[in-house]
Amino acid sequence: MKSSRAEGGAPVASHSHIGIGDEIYQLVAEIFPICRSVAGEGVRETLRRLQREIGLTIREVPSGTQAYDWTIPREWTIRDAYIRNAAGEKVVDFKSCNLHVLNHSAPVHTKMPLSELRHHIFTLPDQPDRIPYRKSAYAESWGFCMAHERLMALPDGDYEAVIDSSLEEGSLSYGEYVHAGTSDEEVLLSAHICHPSLANDNCSGLALLTQLAKGLSGRRTRYSYRFVFAPGTIGALAWLASNEPGTKRVRHGLVVSCVGDGGGPTYKKSRRGNAVIDRAASHVLRHAAPASAILDFSPYGYDERQYCSPGFNLPVGLFQRSLFGTFPEYHTSADDLDFVRPEHLASSYAMIDAILDVIENDFTPLGTLLKGERQLGRHGLYVGGDGAPATQASNMAMLWILNFADGHHTLLDIAERAEMPFAELLATARRLQDHGLLVR
Amino acid sequence: MKSSRAEGGAPVASHSHIGIGDEIYQLVAEIFPICRSVAGEGVRETLRRLQREIGLTIREVPSGTQAYDWTIPREWTIRDAYIRNAAGEKVVDFKSCNLHVLNHSAPVHTKMPLSELRHHIFTLPDQPDRIPYRKSAYAESWGFCMAHERLMALPDGDYEAVIDSSLEEGSLSYGEYVHAGTSDEEVLLSAHICHPSLANDNCSGLALLTQLAKGLSGRRTRYSYRFVFAPGTIGALAWLASNEPGTKRVRHGLVVSCVGDGGGPTYKKSRRGNAVIDRAASHVLRHAAPASAILDFSPYGYDERQYCSPGFNLPVGLFQRSLFGTFPEYHTSADDLDFVRPEHLASSYAMIDAILDVIENDFTPLGTLLKGERQLGRHGLYVGGDGAPATQASNMAMLWILNFADGHHTLLDIAERAEMPFAELLATARRLQDHGLLVR
Amino acid sequence: MKSSRAEGGAPVASHSHIGIGDEIYQLVAEIFPICRSVAGEGVRETLRRLQREIGLTIREVPSGTQAYDWTIPREWTIRDAYIRNAAGEKVVDFKSCNLHVLNHSAPVHTKMPLSELRHHIFTLPDQPDRIPYRKSAYAESWGFCMAHERLMALPDGDYEAVIDSSLEEGSLSYGEYVHAGTSDEEVLLSAHICHPSLANDNCSGLALLTQLAKGLSGRRTRYSYRFVFAPGTIGALAWLASNEPGTKRVRHGLVVSCVGDGGGPTYKKSRRGNAVIDRAASHVLRHAAPASAILDFSPYGYDERQYCSPGFNLPVGLFQRSLFGTFPEYHTSADDLDFVRPEHLASSYAMIDAILDVIENDFTPLGTLLKGERQLGRHGLYVGGDGAPATQASNMAMLWILNFADGHHTLLDIAERAEMPFAELLATARRLQDHGLLVR
Repeated sequence: MKSSRAEGGAPVASHSHIGIGDEIYQLVAEIFPICRSVAGEGVRETLRRLQREIGLTIREVPSGTQAYDWTIPREWTIRDAYIRNAAGEKVVDFKSCNLHVLNHSAPVHTKMPLSELRHHIFTLPDQPDRIPYRKSAYAESWGFCMAHERLMALPDGDYEAVIDSSLEEGSLSYGEYVHAGTSDEEVLLSAHICHPSLANDNCSGLALLTQLAKGLSGRRTRYSYRFVFAPGTIGALAWLASNEPGTKRVRHGLVVSCVGDGGGPTYKKSRRGNAVIDRAASHVLRHAAPASAILDFSPYGYDERQYCSPGFNLPVGLFQRSLFGTFPEYHTSADDLDFVRPEHLASSYAMIDAILDVIENDFTPLGTLLKGERQLGRHGLYVGGDGAPATQASNMAMLWILNFADGHHTLLDIAERAEMPFAELLATARRLQDHGLLVR
Repeated sequence: MKSSRAEGGAPVASHSHIGIGDEIYQLVAEIFPICRSVAGEGVRETLRRLQREIGLTIREVPSGTQAYDWTIPREWTIRDAYIRNAAGEKVVDFKSCNLHVLNHSAPVHTKMPLSELRHHIFTLPDQPDRIPYRKSAYAESWGFCMAHERLMALPDGDYEAVIDSSLEEGSLSYGEYVHAGTSDEEVLLSAHICHPSLANDNCSGLALLTQLAKGLSGRRTRYSYRFVFAPGTIGALAWLASNEPGTKRVRHGLVVSCVGDGGGPTYKKSRRGNAVIDRAASHVLRHAAPASAILDFSPYGYDERQYCSPGFNLPVGLFQRSLFGTFPEYHTSADDLDFVRPEHLASSYAMIDAILDVIENDFTPLGTLLKGERQLGRHGLYVGGDGAPATQASNMAMLWILNFADGHHTLLDIAERAEMPFAELLATARRLQDHGLLVR
Repeated sequence: MKSSRAEGGAPVASHSHIGIGDEIYQLVAEIFPICRSVAGEGVRETLRRLQREIGLTIREVPSGTQAYDWTIPREWTIRDAYIRNAAGEKVVDFKSCNLHVLNHSAPVHTKMPLSELRHHIFTLPDQPDRIPYRKSAYAESWGFCMAHERLMALPDGDYEAVIDSSLEEGSLSYGEYVHAGTSDEEVLLSAHICHPSLANDNCSGLALLTQLAKGLSGRRTRYSYRFVFAPGTIGALAWLASNEPGTKRVRHGLVVSCVGDGGGPTYKKSRRGNAVIDRAASHVLRHAAPASAILDFSPYGYDERQYCSPGFNLPVGLFQRSLFGTFPEYHTSADDLDFVRPEHLASSYAMIDAILDVIENDFTPLGTLLKGERQLGRHGLYVGGDGAPATQASNMAMLWILNFADGHHTLLDIAERAEMPFAELLATARRLQDHGLLVR
């Protein structure tokens, strides 16, 4: 991203990319232990931590409030949860891992034989050493999650099950942060905040966007950038319901999740399929990684489902490394602080930054002379002598831009046609502008 | 095909698909022995047999009548035909196989040496044990067809050639049957009836469409269904010439031939290339069989050539199993009752039925709430609990429909985009309608 | 190319293709030794040689004249150039190969140690036995080109470097020839003339177009054909600057270069990408050679860059055998009279001729009966008897044309759809016209 003036060229965020991976990772590590849920103190605590980085506004939506087809659930407070055997030993303990309790579980204190208790225990038989993440936010239920091999090792007999939680009227919390640009046209950047201790899904998205927002502060941008950190589905719907008129200002957007693993990158297009964000992200990913996957929209995934519901149909895509649901660590205790790496967080950051650079800096160049090729040597612009091949990338970039600077092609159009990175064409276009060969 | 009301969901035809293959096969077997030609008693006898199943109207067009560039030929009557050797033994006998006589052959009674007679004998040197099917409806000529190995085995000498046929003024016959729907917009279903004993080409098409028509009777459909059983080329042209204004009512159509073998399925698109019938057939075949072939229109084939001639340009495609001309049994005595199988007839029936179901039932759904995703669990529609993956097909079908129920997409549009079978989306759409989440 | 009347069908040029390769090769061989440059006597001498074949007009543009962003350079006269060792032996001699002098080199007469002289010597380390072609037309400089292995073999010591050249005010020359057609709509055919002794690049293009122009003379054509033989870049720009209003008459065009080697064929599309010339050339090349390459426009290459600059955006593509820059002989002394072959020149000629035939003869046929298929047998047009397969190409050509002769498809449209050669459809269309089945 760049100032809307021609000068410049540096990425939107002021961080050097060296070290940004570590900064994001540090933040991931700090919010990882918090036991978040759809509504309750966990989300609030996480937002307060992010507030220490950026001037986040925390908004509260009371339980029972309608958001389209959904209702804000009660707040969940969890104090403790365990299963104790006859000998009084805890065989499952929330305090050792907050995935052990069914997220948003109702309270319970009971004793029952294992055969009965099993109906309340979720495991992953295919990954017997991992604890699954399960939730029950909209249907009252209680339960535990544990490693399958641990469950298998439990002797029959009676067990005491305790979940010291409460479900009470309160509010759902979400965070919002706006970086004001020269225009009130907006770029929406959204990450879900409802998962407990899952590092990639989605401490990584929250931390990356927070650092991105931090990097924007004090910079002059063309667009305004709106960051939304909200519980999945219901949080995005609550935001939409509270901001319906404002959604008309959204020109581009990204949902960001699972950005710390080494897979992908993956971009899932908006429902429109050919929005500028779709083209910009496809372009950047294609040049960033040969293994990148560009997927068509489908109505399953993260909060792009809400932003792209037909009544809004916003130009919002989904950026990830590995696609959700396709990696074995997904929604298990293996999605931990070892699974996400600073270098992957840094490269995700760089790609998102590059996508936003396209959005922020794209323009329609107009050559000051449209007839015949420019004599670049005379303007001191040609690399290599007279008769040297133009095939050097910098020469080719000039030739592409000047040939298509007819007022009908944006730089992104030209980058796609030339199959050259947007950043390189942008730098070249600025040089051509400086030499008077191009105007906007 | 379905009633145009929302209820229902069963295929248009009332037959159970179990047994339908046998019913079609039985009819194929009954009409197989008849010696049909372009015009004459053979076609009439076949039509009368079909009349026992459905209230077919038999229409007669007098010899000499002009149909665009063509003229209705004289009727052909064939009583007997044979070649007899010097010993008085019949070495070729029409009574053993009606392919032995050149179809529409002029009469002859002559004796000549084999060397001379050979100019009137058609064989297949590459398939020496098979009798070819040949005709000469528009140029007067006489001849025999026989197995090449039998011809090779004949000793030299004089042979007596007898064709006891007559070519006389009369009429060309075709059959027409209309199932009236709630609208006078029509679906045209056409099969050629001019071939003698060739089981796949086209006793199979005639029998399948007859059973389809039978299955329609008494059912309420959106479209009217017009069945045409006419001699190839000239019969279709005669029908077109007699029904020019009526062709404007044809919204969709299929030519049906060679539907009893185990190849394909094959769909050849209408000349328009993107008619609804083309999309519906492509969709159904893609899901029905990975080996299905979708071919672009070409001006060679069956009567789709006439329906798709530029002056009509009707949205009529061709449904087959193996493509005509590509299987060795094509136009030979090997296209017999062993070559067509009840199970293939049944699956062809099911595919045609599914194509017509798309045509009949496609509509443009409109969600009753377009903002945000529906909370399907609350409506009792979600399969699996809170937090269970939506990847179950039935959940995905709901999500696809609701996301695209914006009034701009038909169910077929959605089925193509979701790559899910139309029938499954239709059933899902009806369920969503029942729950008030969707209207038409 | 053909007269615009229906009769005929022979290629536009009157030459028999037998022998045309030898005629072109002979002309290549005659102009090969001339030391051309951007401006000077070399170009003039070449144009005078071409004038002996066709009534070429030689135009002169004075040095210093502005052509858009470029200025006509001074004329270059080269009399001699050599490097002499201490023993007085010439180790590099312009008289043995005119590539030895940097093209457009300033004069010099100096003595210096080899270590210093090397900065003025160009070689090809990767192809040590070949002399490179280098020029310096727009920056004053002096230098030599030589085989790398020869340079490596030179002992250290002082050498005498002599370039007996002059750079003086004069003019740039280009040749223009117009074959007038029945319309003043033009086909532009352009070849660059500035290279010294390089046979493929571009004696081949000059000679081929000259023979093509010669073949046109006295023939009646629909289009006028304008041939431009001009120095690369600046010559094309000078022509454009002098003929701006005239460029509006250009309907189609080809830049022709490197047409004597055995590679390709290659067609690079005009900037428009879907101009008729692009479709015609793609069609012809696809049928001419399975290995043909159809490339999208890029702003690097020959003078199509100027014709396709956005202020003109003319429908002009580039026809070559091997693509420039991709063959090792490119811009070296190996691009000699052994590298180009009469048979390749002949096949290039045939392909260009076929492309122009499409342009010249394409039309929109209209069937005289649009309803139903024609009974081709009755019109004496059907190959094979009644019931014989239509799959013979000549039958299929008739069926394709008649089915698409609805007034909305040109013959080229039909050729593309039928995947049949245009020439075959054209001959067929004429036969159908003769039989009254088709009008224009």
